[in-house]
Amino acid sequence: MSSITRSAVEAMDACDPLASCRARFALPSNVVYLDGNSLGALPVGASARLSEVVEAWGRDLIRGWNRRDWIGWPKRMGDRIARLIGARAGEVIVADSTSVNVFKLLLAALDLRRGRSVILSETDNFPTDLHVAQGLVHMLDKRVGLRTVDAPALPGALGRDVAVLMLTHVNYRTGGMHDMAALTAAAHDAGALALWDLSHSAGAMPLALDEAGVDLAVGGGYKFLNGGPGAPAYVFVAERWLERIRPALSGWMGHARPFDFDTTYEPAPGIERLLVGTPPVLSLAALDAGLETFQGVDLALVRAKSLALGTLFRQLVEQECDGFGLRLVSPLDPERCGSQVCYAHAEGYAIMQALIENGVIGDFRAPNVLRFGFAPLYVRHVDVFDAVVALRSVLSTRAWDDPRFRTRALVT
Amino acid sequence: MSSITRSAVEAMDACDPLASCRARFALPSNVVYLDGNSLGALPVGASARLSEVVEAWGRDLIRGWNRRDWIGWPKRMGDRIARLIGARAGEVIVADSTSVNVFKLLLAALDLRRGRSVILSETDNFPTDLHVAQGLVHMLDKRVGLRTVDAPALPGALGRDVAVLMLTHVNYRTGGMHDMAALTAAAHDAGALALWDLSHSAGAMPLALDEAGVDLAVGGGYKFLNGGPGAPAYVFVAERWLERIRPALSGWMGHARPFDFDTTYEPAPGIERLLVGTPPVLSLAALDAGLETFQGVDLALVRAKSLALGTLFRQLVEQECDGFGLRLVSPLDPERCGSQVCYAHAEGYAIMQALIENGVIGDFRAPNVLRFGFAPLYVRHVDVFDAVVALRSVLSTRAWDDPRFRTRALVT
Repeated sequence: MSSITRSAVEAMDACDPLASCRARFALPSNVVYLDGNSLGALPVGASARLSEVVEAWGRDLIRGWNRRDWIGWPKRMGDRIARLIGARAGEVIVADSTSVNVFKLLLAALDLRRGRSVILSETDNFPTDLHVAQGLVHMLDKRVGLRTVDAPALPGALGRDVAVLMLTHVNYRTGGMHDMAALTAAAHDAGALALWDLSHSAGAMPLALDEAGVDLAVGGGYKFLNGGPGAPAYVFVAERWLERIRPALSGWMGHARPFDFDTTYEPAPGIERLLVGTPPVLSLAALDAGLETFQGVDLALVRAKSLALGTLFRQLVEQECDGFGLRLVSPLDPERCGSQVCYAHAEGYAIMQALIENGVIGDFRAPNVLRFGFAPLYVRHVDVFDAVVALRSVLSTRAWDDPRFRTRALVT
Repeated sequence: MSSITRSAVEAMDACDPLASCRARFALPSNVVYLDGNSLGALPVGASARLSEVVEAWGRDLIRGWNRRDWIGWPKRMGDRIARLIGARAGEVIVADSTSVNVFKLLLAALDLRRGRSVILSETDNFPTDLHVAQGLVHMLDKRVGLRTVDAPALPGALGRDVAVLMLTHVNYRTGGMHDMAALTAAAHDAGALALWDLSHSAGAMPLALDEAGVDLAVGGGYKFLNGGPGAPAYVFVAERWLERIRPALSGWMGHARPFDFDTTYEPAPGIERLLVGTPPVLSLAALDAGLETFQGVDLALVRAKSLALGTLFRQLVEQECDGFGLRLVSPLDPERCGSQVCYAHAEGYAIMQALIENGVIGDFRAPNVLRFGFAPLYVRHVDVFDAVVALRSVLSTRAWDDPRFRTRALVT
């Protein structure tokens, strides 16, 4: 195979139908950003949206809740997210954090499947999903249990005691992607519900929750949805379950009539029952700016570009970085790929720090994984090229072999 | 008693030691704002703080978590709040909403008091606190119960089955205030823990949680703390309990080493264990601007002014609004008063709407209560005077008697 040149890669950008989307983001000029799977880039509209809310806070004060319809934002933004994940309007609402939402939905699932006591998940699921399940097991005095198995063993572990199969669609460390429809069907065959964490897939590909028959889902707002650091999360409940869910985390914003100040909880008829406390208006404004970056965007094109960027990255690493000990941990099959490509390396942490110092931002996941994420709305093919050139340079010069790259930062 | 004149009231402002604090807020010129107990006014510093974070998001991207210490903000802001509520640094952290925090702490209390099964609260507690308890009772299959009694019956209801006494310090509807130290001591005498919701008192008076021996507390960020609409809440855990709390809502941010991505939950050694999901950085920035408005402020002066404003308001209502059917529902005894004065009136809703249209913003609480809140950092004595003059005008002209003031808005 002849080698891939930068000019060939520039040609890919020239015919990229999503190329114009990059202008929707304010990206630093001296950086290649391959960590949008961890924190999405800043939408150009975010600043104005926040200023607008700050102005309204100052001028309208408490009246903003009605005048600006702040009270309706969680639902309105949920409806915007619904389009991105293949859900109907009214099945999604923005609330709390992903972790808190996992808690809500695990409890809902256990309640809907009384008599079954097992939460089934994957050994390598994102830690917080497992931590939440563990807390819940402790809280319920082990009347329920968490069973984790490796991915291939999941279908076989779907016994008659399983209330809910809880999985993250795209694995945070490997970028490997589950077959959502098949595993949801398997869960249903076993009489269990399926709860999906979409944090690492929503916004990077079209999802089809309703088509796949998914029961419950959660996801974060700050990765591919570009909602800003610590953006609020969202929760999806299939319409058929909504009225049967009696939220365990029941707060006033989920009440049928919050401003009647009725002391007896009565769940709101719709998805609002998944709300708990007061909506975080400032964070919601930024999230809305993030969702706005998807305006008019065809998610099939997003997926095609995501895979193209990932494939290009892998090809270039093969071409440029052979012999430096990088071991691909992401799948090759496009049907099994999320929007990130990951390599294991014993010096992974130091290599990533050196790379970041050279202007290419990916991240590291313990124990030894270098992650490179591709946010198709703003990552260009030349970014991928330049990133691999920088990676080769770090590896070939052993730039990473420096004590200052070995001190672990608090956040990796 | 001779009548109180506006010039007499102006003289009170002239010698108000907190008068200069008003400049810390951006208040609209045409409004008297007596609803800071529901949503605090906009701190002048909020806009700059948010811009700073937006800029950091754009420029530092994921690196902001370390470079800007976003990861440390919940604890840092908790420490700032600790000073306002009489807690030690390390006993408070900013997280989630008040409702979610009530849920966490009720579970913690039930866990610390195994063998006891009752959550004791007040019939007229703020609804969300009761809703959360009800959800928890449902979730735990009624192995625990919620007992609510009227305030005077609380001490007598502290049976040996009570695990936790959960109360809101200042009642949202009447402004009546509990004796925190006495009720905490009573709870302890009965072998129960005391969990206080400080939403309607923190920031309006000095609190002394540690001195009173309080075990657990929560509070909101958007009322007297001026953190903005839907600001994050906080949680207090007395140092002596911290290490014994195994959070039921256990997420990765409460893990001892979140970035080890260990799949087994292990609580952080300190107050961080009360964290669940990723901290909402944008909302935290605004909250920090809110907390900044208390910089160098003596809370004893805040309390004195709060009481003075409330007393003045009551006196002026007696003087100006006699015979219009307003019935005071707030206590007279300063030891029992929060920072709001409330009146019942059959036409309360319409009266408040007419008053708001006349530039005086208070709020209404079902079924019939007009609330007037006094945020001592920015409410002047003349505001109180002008508010009562406007109230008299609305009442004497029956301006409220208009169909458009009877249509209930979504948020009241």
